[in-house]
Amino acid sequence: MFESAEIGHSIDKETYDAEVPALREALLEAQYELKQQARFPVIVLINGIEGAGKGETVKLLNEWMDPRMIDVLTFDQQTDEELARPPAWRYWRALPPKGRMGVFFGNWYSQMLQGRVHGVFKDAVLDQAITGAERLEQMLCDEGALIIKFWFHLSKKQMKARLKALKDDPLHSWRISPLDWQQSETYDRFVRFGERVLRRTSRDYAPWHVVEGVDPYYRSLAVGRILLESLQAALANNPKGKHHGNVAPLGRSIDQRSLIGALDMTLRLDKQDYQEQLVTEQARLAGLLRHKHMRRHALVAVFEGNDAAGKGGAIRRVAAALDPRQYRIVPIAAPSEDERAQPYLWRFWRQIPARGKFTIFDRSWYGRVLVERVEGFCTPADWMRAYSEINDFEEQLVNAGVVVVKFWLAIDQQTQLERFEEREQIPFKRYKITEDDWRNREKWDLYTEAVGDMVDRTSSEIAPWTLVEANDKRWARVKVLRTINEALEAAFAKDKK
Amino acid sequence: MFESAEIGHSIDKETYDAEVPALREALLEAQYELKQQARFPVIVLINGIEGAGKGETVKLLNEWMDPRMIDVLTFDQQTDEELARPPAWRYWRALPPKGRMGVFFGNWYSQMLQGRVHGVFKDAVLDQAITGAERLEQMLCDEGALIIKFWFHLSKKQMKARLKALKDDPLHSWRISPLDWQQSETYDRFVRFGERVLRRTSRDYAPWHVVEGVDPYYRSLAVGRILLESLQAALANNPKGKHHGNVAPLGRSIDQRSLIGALDMTLRLDKQDYQEQLVTEQARLAGLLRHKHMRRHALVAVFEGNDAAGKGGAIRRVAAALDPRQYRIVPIAAPSEDERAQPYLWRFWRQIPARGKFTIFDRSWYGRVLVERVEGFCTPADWMRAYSEINDFEEQLVNAGVVVVKFWLAIDQQTQLERFEEREQIPFKRYKITEDDWRNREKWDLYTEAVGDMVDRTSSEIAPWTLVEANDKRWARVKVLRTINEALEAAFAKDKK
Repeated sequence: MFESAEIGHSIDKETYDAEVPALREALLEAQYELKQQARFPVIVLINGIEGAGKGETVKLLNEWMDPRMIDVLTFDQQTDEELARPPAWRYWRALPPKGRMGVFFGNWYSQMLQGRVHGVFKDAVLDQAITGAERLEQMLCDEGALIIKFWFHLSKKQMKARLKALKDDPLHSWRISPLDWQQSETYDRFVRFGERVLRRTSRDYAPWHVVEGVDPYYRSLAVGRILLESLQAALANNPKGKHHGNVAPLGRSIDQRSLIGALDMTLRLDKQDYQEQLVTEQARLAGLLRHKHMRRHALVAVFEGNDAAGKGGAIRRVAAALDPRQYRIVPIAAPSEDERAQPYLWRFWRQIPARGKFTIFDRSWYGRVLVERVEGFCTPADWMRAYSEINDFEEQLVNAGVVVVKFWLAIDQQTQLERFEEREQIPFKRYKITEDDWRNREKWDLYTEAVGDMVDRTSSEIAPWTLVEANDKRWARVKVLRTINEALEAAFAKDKK
Repeated sequence: MFESAEIGHSIDKETYDAEVPALREALLEAQYELKQQARFPVIVLINGIEGAGKGETVKLLNEWMDPRMIDVLTFDQQTDEELARPPAWRYWRALPPKGRMGVFFGNWYSQMLQGRVHGVFKDAVLDQAITGAERLEQMLCDEGALIIKFWFHLSKKQMKARLKALKDDPLHSWRISPLDWQQSETYDRFVRFGERVLRRTSRDYAPWHVVEGVDPYYRSLAVGRILLESLQAALANNPKGKHHGNVAPLGRSIDQRSLIGALDMTLRLDKQDYQEQLVTEQARLAGLLRHKHMRRHALVAVFEGNDAAGKGGAIRRVAAALDPRQYRIVPIAAPSEDERAQPYLWRFWRQIPARGKFTIFDRSWYGRVLVERVEGFCTPADWMRAYSEINDFEEQLVNAGVVVVKFWLAIDQQTQLERFEEREQIPFKRYKITEDDWRNREKWDLYTEAVGDMVDRTSSEIAPWTLVEANDKRWARVKVLRTINEALEAAFAKDKK
C-alpha cells in the first residue's frame, strides 16, 4: 500500500516554480466557486508519519488558498465538555458548514491508530473504530460533503533522517515533540496498523491519497493537485443527479395488518389509579435522576406521535417530576439556516446531553423518515439511508452511556378528530391547531405506513421504540413515565455487573 | 428595601385555587404570542435567600406554562472551555433566542454576591461587577430583551425555620446542601450586600421584584402575575416606536480636516526593505505566539478598511507566519438566521478565542457603526449606543487577558479605482469585486465620517485603533505585523511586573 510512496519521488525547483502560479489561481477559483455554490462542505483529513510534512503542507495550502475560507482544527486533549459526551461529538461540533473547508488534524484515524499502536486495545476494537469511521464518512458523503484523505508517508529510513535534520536545525527543533521520537520507535507498528486502516477505509466516495513526504516540492504539488481535482470534480457534479441511484422499495404490507393497527386502543386508566400511579412513577423518576449511577449516564427521551396524541401533556408530566435544572426540552421544528448548512443529524448532535443530564426531544431526528418522507421534503434515497444512519447515531449514544427511550404516541382517527375540534373551541388551546394539522390528517395512511417502517427498522435492543396507546391520556402518561423508569433501572443494574 | 417582604404575606388556599386557572391560561397565551412574534427573548433572573422557594417557583412555572418554550439554566462550576474565556462568555452562549424564555439560576448576581459575602473581594470590586451587570442588562434591553429579576426573600427568622423544616422532612432533606447552612450563618452579610446590589441595579428597563418566600401560595401567585404582566406589556409594546427616543447628533467636522485625511498616504517600502522587514516581523510573531506567556493571553485582531484596501493580503501575511492550528480567521458577512435571533454582539462572542489562541476577524463588530450606519440597516439610536457597548465588550476581553488589536486599512479614492479596475481584469481576482463595491464607493464621504467617529469613540488605551496607510501594500503589511508584535510584547512585559 505504501510501496510507491517510498521510491523517492521528487520534483525539481524549476518545474515546481513553473507550475505553482497556475495551480494557485485554479485553487482560488475553486474555493470561490465553493463559497458561491455553498452546496457542500469540504473535509480534509491529515494523517501519516511524523516528519512527513503534514504541518508544512497545511501551512502551505493556507498560503496558496484564501485562508479566510479554511478552518484548521486539531483534536488533541478532550475538554471536559467533550469528555461528558460520545466521542464523535467533538467532530460534529467542528464540521464546516456548506461552502467552507475544514482541515482536520488529529482526527478519528489518529485516535484509533494511537490506541492500537500503544496497545490500549487489540485488532477487534480497531476494526470497530474503522467501521465507525467508514459509516461516518459514508453518511457525510451522502449528505453532500467532499472528503479528501491524505496519508503523508516516509520510509523508516527517511523518517529517521528527517527527524534528525529537524533536530539539528535551530529554527525547527521546537517542532520535535517527545511523541515524535517515540514514533520513531513504533514506526513498524504504526505502518502496519496504518495499512490496515487505509485498506479498509479507502472507498470510492472517500479514497485515501498516499503522498511521499520527503521532497517538499513533490509533496506540495501532489497535494495541491489532488485537492484541486477533487474540488473541481465535486463542483462540476450535477447536484440534482446525485441521489438518483437505485432505491430498493421497502415493500408494503400485503394484508391489512399493521403494527399500529394491532395496538389495543381501548386501554385506559380510571382517575384514581391514574393519580396513584402517576405520583408513584414521578417519585421514582425523581429518585433515579438523583441516583449516583446517573452520573455515568445521560438520558434522551424522544417523543413522536400523531398530531394531538398528547405529546405535550406527556412531556409535562415527565418534567413535573423533576428539578427544571436537570432537564432540557428541545422542540424540533423546521431547521434554521445554520442547521441547513450541515448534515441533518447535526442539529441533534448539538443537543446531546452531558453525563448526568436529561434531554427531551419533542419530535426528533425521526422527522426524516416521517414528515420528510411523507411530504417529499427529501428524496427516497435520503430517507432510506436515514434508517441506518439513525441506528448508527443511537448506537454511539448508547455506547457512551446514554439511555435512549423513544415513544410513538398513537391515537385513532376518531379521537384525533374530537381533539382537533376541542382545540378549536378552547381559547388557550387554539394555538395548538393549525391548517397543517388538518392537512396531515388527510395523509393518515401514509403516516401509518411510515411509522410501521420506522419502528421495524429502528427499534433495536439498545434503543427500542415504545408504542403508546394514547386514546386515553392517563394511560399514555403513566406508560411513558414507567418506561423511562424501567430503562434507567435496567441501565443502572447493568452497571453493577 | 426588603421591609415589605418580611411582613408575612400570605394568600389562602381558596383564593389561590380560584385564581390559578385563569393565570395559567393567560401565561400560556402570552407564551404562544411570544413564540409567534419571535421579536424578543425573555430572560428571568432568579436570586435571593436560600430556602425562599426559588427552585420550587421555577418548577411551578414550568408546570403552569409550556416547558418546551423555557430553558432553565444553572451556572455553577465553570467548564474548562469557559475558564479559558472572559467570565461573561458562559452567559452569552446561554442566551435564549428571540421568542424563547431563559430562566437563569446562579447568574451574574449570585457570583458577585458569593464573592463579596465570602470576602474574596471588597466593595470596590463588587461595585465594578454591579456596573458590569447594569451595562449588560441595558444592552440586552436595548436589543429588545425583556429582563425580569426576582429576589426571593425571607427574614432571618423565617429562613432558619424553613431550613429546619426542610431538614426534618425526609422527602426534602436532600435539598439542603452544606452551602445552605453556611448561608444561615452569613445571612446578615448576604442581605446587606444584596441590598446594595438591588439598589444599584433596579432600573426602569429591568427592575427587581422582591417576593416574600414564606407562603407558597402568595409567592407563586405573585411571581406568576409579575411574569404575566411583564410579558403582556412587552408583547403589546409597539416595536417600531421603541428606539425613537432622542438621539443626540454626533456633530460634524466644521473644517475640512479628518483623521483619515491627515494620514500620510505616500508612505511606502521598497521591495528589499519589505522582504527583510516582513520576514523579521513574521519570525517575531511566530516566536511570540509560542512564548510561554501566550498561555495566559489570547489574541484578537480586527481588520476593517476601505474596499480593496488589502485586508485579505495583510491577513494572509499574518497567517503565513503561523502554524494554521494556532489561528482561526472569521470572515464576517451578513448575520445568519440564528444570529439575527440574538443581540448583535452574540455572533462575535461565539468566536472569542480560548487562552493561547488567536482569532482574526475579517470585518467585525464595527460593522454596526460602519456599513449598518451608512446603509441605514439599523436606527441611529442603535449605532449610537454601539460605541459604548463595543467599548464594554472590548474591556471585558482585555480584562480577561485578551490582547486586542484593531486595524483600519485606508486607501485613497484614486488607488481604490485602480484596484477595482485591476480586479475586473484579472480572472482569479474577479470574484473580489461586486456591484456592492461600486455602490459603496459612491458613499465615500459618509464612510469617511463614520470611520472618524468610530476611531474617536472606540480607540482606547486598552484597545487602540491603528490607522494603516495602505496605498502601498508593503507598507501596510509590515505595519500590521509590527503592531501586533508590539501589542503582544507590551502585554507580556506587563505580566512580568
